[in-house]
Order: sequence, then C-alpha cells, then structure tokens
Amino acid sequence: MADKKMVEAITSMDEDFAQWYTDVVKKAELIDYTSVKGCMAIKPEGYAIWELIQSQLDARFKATGVKNLYLPMFIPESLLQKEKDHVEGFAPEVAWVTYGGGQKLTERMCVRPTSETLFCDYYKGVVHSYRDLPQVCNQWCSVVRWEKETRPFLRSREFLWQEGHTAHATAEEAQERTEQMLNVYADFLENVLAIPVIKGQKTEKEKFAGAVATYTIETLMHDGKALQAGTSHNFGDGFAKAFEIQYTDKDNTLKHVHQTSWGMTTRLIGAIIMVHGDNSGLKLPPRVAPTQVVIIPIQQKKEGVLDKAYEIEKTLKAAGVRVRTDDVDKTPGWKFSEQEMRGIPMRIEIGPKDIEAGKCIICRRDNGEKIEVALTDLEAKVPEILETIQKDMFEAAKAHRDEHTYVATTMEEFEKCFTEKSGFVKSMWCEDQACEDAIKEKLAVTSRCMPYEQENLSDKCVCCGKPAKKMVYWGKAY
Amino acid sequence: MADKKMVEAITSMDEDFAQWYTDVVKKAELIDYTSVKGCMAIKPEGYAIWELIQSQLDARFKATGVKNLYLPMFIPESLLQKEKDHVEGFAPEVAWVTYGGGQKLTERMCVRPTSETLFCDYYKGVVHSYRDLPQVCNQWCSVVRWEKETRPFLRSREFLWQEGHTAHATAEEAQERTEQMLNVYADFLENVLAIPVIKGQKTEKEKFAGAVATYTIETLMHDGKALQAGTSHNFGDGFAKAFEIQYTDKDNTLKHVHQTSWGMTTRLIGAIIMVHGDNSGLKLPPRVAPTQVVIIPIQQKKEGVLDKAYEIEKTLKAAGVRVRTDDVDKTPGWKFSEQEMRGIPMRIEIGPKDIEAGKCIICRRDNGEKIEVALTDLEAKVPEILETIQKDMFEAAKAHRDEHTYVATTMEEFEKCFTEKSGFVKSMWCEDQACEDAIKEKLAVTSRCMPYEQENLSDKCVCCGKPAKKMVYWGKAY
Repeated sequence: MADKKMVEAITSMDEDFAQWYTDVVKKAELIDYTSVKGCMAIKPEGYAIWELIQSQLDARFKATGVKNLYLPMFIPESLLQKEKDHVEGFAPEVAWVTYGGGQKLTERMCVRPTSETLFCDYYKGVVHSYRDLPQVCNQWCSVVRWEKETRPFLRSREFLWQEGHTAHATAEEAQERTEQMLNVYADFLENVLAIPVIKGQKTEKEKFAGAVATYTIETLMHDGKALQAGTSHNFGDGFAKAFEIQYTDKDNTLKHVHQTSWGMTTRLIGAIIMVHGDNSGLKLPPRVAPTQVVIIPIQQKKEGVLDKAYEIEKTLKAAGVRVRTDDVDKTPGWKFSEQEMRGIPMRIEIGPKDIEAGKCIICRRDNGEKIEVALTDLEAKVPEILETIQKDMFEAAKAHRDEHTYVATTMEEFEKCFTEKSGFVKSMWCEDQACEDAIKEKLAVTSRCMPYEQENLSDKCVCCGKPAKKMVYWGKAY
Repeated sequence: MADKKMVEAITSMDEDFAQWYTDVVKKAELIDYTSVKGCMAIKPEGYAIWELIQSQLDARFKATGVKNLYLPMFIPESLLQKEKDHVEGFAPEVAWVTYGGGQKLTERMCVRPTSETLFCDYYKGVVHSYRDLPQVCNQWCSVVRWEKETRPFLRSREFLWQEGHTAHATAEEAQERTEQMLNVYADFLENVLAIPVIKGQKTEKEKFAGAVATYTIETLMHDGKALQAGTSHNFGDGFAKAFEIQYTDKDNTLKHVHQTSWGMTTRLIGAIIMVHGDNSGLKLPPRVAPTQVVIIPIQQKKEGVLDKAYEIEKTLKAAGVRVRTDDVDKTPGWKFSEQEMRGIPMRIEIGPKDIEAGKCIICRRDNGEKIEVALTDLEAKVPEILETIQKDMFEAAKAHRDEHTYVATTMEEFEKCFTEKSGFVKSMWCEDQACEDAIKEKLAVTSRCMPYEQENLSDKCVCCGKPAKKMVYWGKAY
C-alpha cells in the first residue's frame, strides 16, 4: 500500500540512478505498470502534472494563433507510404490493426506513430487558395511506437503528446514558424519546468524522417545524460509534393505549400524528475506542482491546531495557491517525508506554540531552508517564496548543466569526457557524416545539436582534423 | 472553399432532416470526412466546442472529487474476456491489433471500445485496504467501435469521450455515485448545453453489458427522434468478482469493491446541432460558443468604423466575452449569413450613423430579435443578453420537447404516435421483456428509459393489458 511504502527509503541516485528513477516514479505514485506490455498507467498524481503542462503550453500555443483539432488515430497503409523517408522512419515500429468488427480489413491500418500523413490528407482537402493559408493546427492525443525496451515516461509503446502541424504559402514563413515554436518550447521549459535548454539544429543524420531541417531543445539530466525535450521540423514542400497539397496564389498560379511540425510529450515529466529530483524523492517546480503547498499540523489533536490549519488553507486558496492540509492520523515526521517524496515545493508547519506566537514555519523542498513567517504575512509571503523557489530551481539546474558541460578539442579529451565524467561535450565538427558515425561508433554518444550559439573552440574537426564548420553538442542520450 | 460555400443555402430541415444535419456540419466547418473509413476529422470550429464542453464538465467532475488519469489504449484479449456479459457486448465491434514492431503478437489486443477491464486491472493493483477507497477516477480519451454505418458526431468508428470509473466499499456508496454523476450530466446538459433531459433508468434489455443498472439522460431532437446523451452504470460487484478486486475492511475481512462507470461523448455536439439548429444553420448556446459575439462593421471603409469596432471588441474582451470583429472584405449581408450559419449567438452591427448616434444594433441568433443599445451600455448589456439567450434557448427546447411528448394507453394510440407524429411516447408497461420486444418489433422504437418522475397513466400495460408496473418513455433513437 502507498501508505506504508511512502516513507521507506529509495535507492540513492549516486548508487544507481536508473533504480532511483524507478523508485521515485513508483513511490511518488506517478505511474503504475499494467497488464499491457510496454504501456504505463499514468496515475492521478502523474496525470495532474501533465494537465498543468498541457494547460500552460496550450495557452502559449493559442497566443501564437494555434487552433486545436482532432484527426483519426488510424493511418491506412497506403497513406503512410506516400512520403518515402517518412515511411522508412516509422514503418518498422508501428502497430497494425488487421481486423475490425469481426472481419479482416481489406487494407491494414497502423495506429498513428505521428500524424504528418493524416494532416497532409486533411490539408489537401481544406487548402485551395492563398486565403486558406496559413493553417496552424495542433492536436493533443496519444501515439504508439512499438519500442522493445521501455521506461516510465521516457520510452513507452504508447505516450501522450501534442503534435502541431502547419502549412504556409512560403518557405520563409514555414522556417519562421519552425523557429517560433522552438522558442515557445524553450521558454516553456525554462520558465515553467525550470529546465535550462540548449537550442539548436539536428545534424542530417539525426533529423526527423521526411524533414528538411529539425530543431531541438536539449536538456541535461542529473546523471549527465542528455534528453531531447522537444523538436520542431521544417518539411519544406516535400510532403506537399507527395500529397499534392497545392494552392492558387494571388498571381493565379498553383503552388505547393510549405509545412512544419513540432511536438512535446509526457517524457517532459521524466525530465522534471531527472533534472530536479534528489535522494528524498521528487522535486516539482511550483508552476507544475498539482499541490504547491501542504500544511502539516503539529500536535493536531490539540484544540485549535486543525482549525488554524484549515484557516490558513482557506486564505491561501483564495490567494490562488494550490494548497491542502495533511490532516491524516500520522506523525509530522511521516508527513514531512511524504511531502518530500511527492515533491511538493513547500510545507507549512503549524503547532500550538506557533499559533500562540502568531507565526509558522515554511520549509522549502528545493533547498530545505526553513523560514519563520508571521501568520498575518502568509498570504503575501507564500506566493513570493513559491516564485523564489521556481527561479532558484532553474538556477540550480543551470549551474549543474554548466558544471557538466565540457570542451573537447581532441579525441583523447573527448573520450575522457565520457569515461571519467559525464555530461554535454562541445566540440568542433567538419560536417562530414563519416566523423559523426565514427564518434558514435567509438564512444556510443550521439550529436545532440548544432547550437544556435556557436563558439569557435578550435579550427579543426575533433575527429578528422580537417577544417571545422560547426560546433556540436554531444552526449549520451535517453 | 469555405468562403464561397458559406452563404449558399442549406437543405431545409423540414424537407430532409438528415441532409440538413450533414449540410450544417459541413458548412459550419465542424467536421471533415477523411481517408480513414468511418472516422471523422473534427475541425477547429468543432473541436473548440468540444474544448468548452470538456473544460466545463471537467470542472464539475473535480468539484465532486474526481481525479483524471490515463490508462493504455490497448486491451489484451484475455483481459477483455474476464467479464462474460461485457465481452459479449463489445467483442463483435472491436478493432484488433495483431502485429507490432514488425512481428505477429503472441496475444492480439483490441483498441479500447471502453475501459472497464483496464480500470479493473488498475484498481486491483491499487486497492488493498478500506483506506484506499473510494477510487474516483476519470479519463478523457478516444475509443473505437467498428460501426458499419456512421454519421458525423453521432456514430463513428472513433470518437472522443470521457469515461469515469469508480470503486467503493459499499453497494450504497456505488449507487449514490451512479446517481450523483447522472445528476451532474443532467445539470450540465440543461445549464450549459441548454438541452432539457429526461432522467431515468434503462430497462434490463437496454442496460450496459455487465451492469446491474444503467441510468440515462434522454433528449429529444428537432425531428422528434431521441438521443441518449449520457449514461451512468452501477456494476455492483460483478466486475470486482471477475477481476478479484478485494479490500480488507475495518473488521479485517476481505470484501469485493462495488463499481460504477459513466460517460459522455462528442455526440453531444450532434445533440446541440439537432436540438437548437434551424434552416439558417447552427445555433450555439452562449456557454459552449467558441465565439459568442461577432462585431460586423457596416460601411467598414468609412473612417472611424473599424476603429470603433475594435474598440468595442477590446471592451467586451475585457468583460470576459469571447468576441471577434469580422473585418474581411465582404458585404455585411454575407457576414450576417455566415454568423447565422456558424451559430454565433449574437452579432453587433455598427456603422457610421450608429457611431454618430452613440449606439449599435444587437441581433440575437436564437430568435432574430434586434435590440438597439447605447455604446456606453454595451459592456453591461452584452453579458446580460447572452445570459437571456442561454435561458431562452433552454426554454424553447423544453417547449418543443413537451409539445412532442405524447401519451399512449393503447397500441392503436401508440402506433399513431409514430406514424402521424414523432417524439417521445409515454406509456405504461408490465415489466415483461416480451412486451418490450413486441413493441420494438412492431413499431421499430425502443424503450428510452423508466423515468425518475413516474406518472400513473393507466393501470394496464400498453402492450399486453396486464397490470402495469412502470411508466416508460419510448422513441425512435439515433
């Protein structure tokens, strides 16, 4: 039972990070395993985080003119096959429906692994004139990719995501939208999830199946591994040509549209856990914490204690804080430990002596700091401290990322970075895929991105020594 | 293109109601057909209605303690087969996944047609003690049922819905939750969708596969056909026994839980169309109208007209109204017709003369009434008139429903109701399924429900003449 397990120790993250992660995910009650192999149940505590991600991201989308819609979850095989690179990228990992309503289907259909083909089919029907452009649509849904090895939130056969798909009159407009959405993602991660990102472009080797260019936000987890947190693709007119999506321009000529797509998934919850968590459990940034403050009464059976706790709860609720009182019949120590495991950003301790003195103790989950606050100041102080926690969590994550970002100008240095340390490695590259392949082969790391913020670390490619063209971030990735 | 088609006439609803419905759905741009047989694309204008339904219903759920979660979309065949009645009800209409990741699956899985079995599997894992109860969870997702004939929103192979599933310690508590959620549904339909409902219980014949009792809210469409708008099921402990969901009670004995489930779907959008719509198109109740007010400038090229329109837009937005200005280069007449087709509850007409006189014209979509309003009163008047529209739409729908509800005490009267008229028919029933079967066979109508509000219309069953036990609503159903 959750009740009993909550205060048991979890594996230390320094000892076994993967086991620590699994422990947190289970003991903070974010996820449960199911009888459906490779698929997870997202429990109410985990789903509430997703709802906060969804509502805040959706508002940011809508502010840029995005409209939501819903397309079918099935893709007929012939539709999937229309764009060559795309089908090659996805066909090996789809699930096929072959029977429906007791009968064998004349054409099998896969459950969408992503919906480029469906959006193309849709846009072909609604786009005719330049007046119908741009089309800027998004869909919140689940997708299926038949992964062999799965991990909660990070890799599962079914996951939740949003996929934006747009169609534009010109290549410039498509490129602008691609970068605009990457910026929305970066801003969301830094300001809502308190996770610092590296914005950049994927190499040819790592780009999305069917894209002209893929842009990414890359994040660093506490164990030094990289996690791709969101991608934005410019498709040029490749899909438009394969699906014949044309419009009549002002000059009365027929032109192909230019398209983009961009997506983020429930793996963001995995990123929150692995960027912010510690050996006491989960640590949620206030903006995505379903409960931001828990009030823990001390000696709650003494007269007036629970009443005061409820009074504080009422005051904070009215101030817009997501707060609850933990009034179950357990010791305060047990409740502290539960608050820490669940990652609730702040607890308020209030007992008979505090009430007498007209004060209480605020304890921050992020750094353990205890702050004495007069009861009359709570309404103003709590939102203020939550804001501070939000900012400090970002700064702490950024400091960790920066401390674990290394420079390599030779292959020896490069190798050392991944044997003696772990993190991001910045190095120069000649843009030849042979070098990218060689590095991946030798060190089992992948190019994460060519960052927007280029630096000139050396004139030579770290691998072949030929003239360097790009600085690249490398890492071992989830 | 939508632009051109918008103002073309639609089929008259009196002439061909089905064609009228299809015309509205297409011309108000709610839905598009797709290359995926039997599956619809819900376009942005349609999906925005669903978002308003979702957010308002979700808030009502949460106010009663419901928590959202997410379970897998696949059900392994062995799991589906655990409850006998349930599998018989759903197996014939599911879609089967037989291949994944290039390999034939050892056990095929269906795409969920509903998730009772998955919730049971989940609750079996999380419920151990009376302290773990009640479990009151809900999921927003899409489900698949392999329908042969499909109609936009009303019947499609994939549709969006919410499915709530609960587990309780006692039978009484389960019954209470079953009725509580039916009441939430009824209140939502009447107060948000402006659709009057009949609350009642389904007969044994019509109840859900695996349920002990099914409760329903039944609505009447403009053509006199009935639509089941939402159902709430009490499962007793049948599923709990099949899935072995047990808890240790306070007295230390093992007991089975008692369960419920309840759901509403995107067919609600179909109900909105068919209850409120008219020969000019869609008619949206203000509370689910993505755009509540459209401002239509008259002689918009004259100086100051557009500026005044934008100023009004800004004022109304600040007052919390969902408003936009239609400033495209078309005639006011064309714009009026578009506003009517799209069902926008109110338009504001503002031209140079109005501005001079410091007033404007408000035109209500529901009854065509024109109201002159001083510009300085707009901020107060518009929300007030929207509220009036909301209430009047409910009253109009209720009057229509009541006018089309008939009483039959003999089979002759019964038959006349469905040959000469169409609507709900109330009649007495002996509770013998043979009579229910006979009526269905003879008149092609089904029992809609045994309403909570029973009336004593006669002592005899309308079919066999034996002593009557229940009053039943009958109708031809969508």
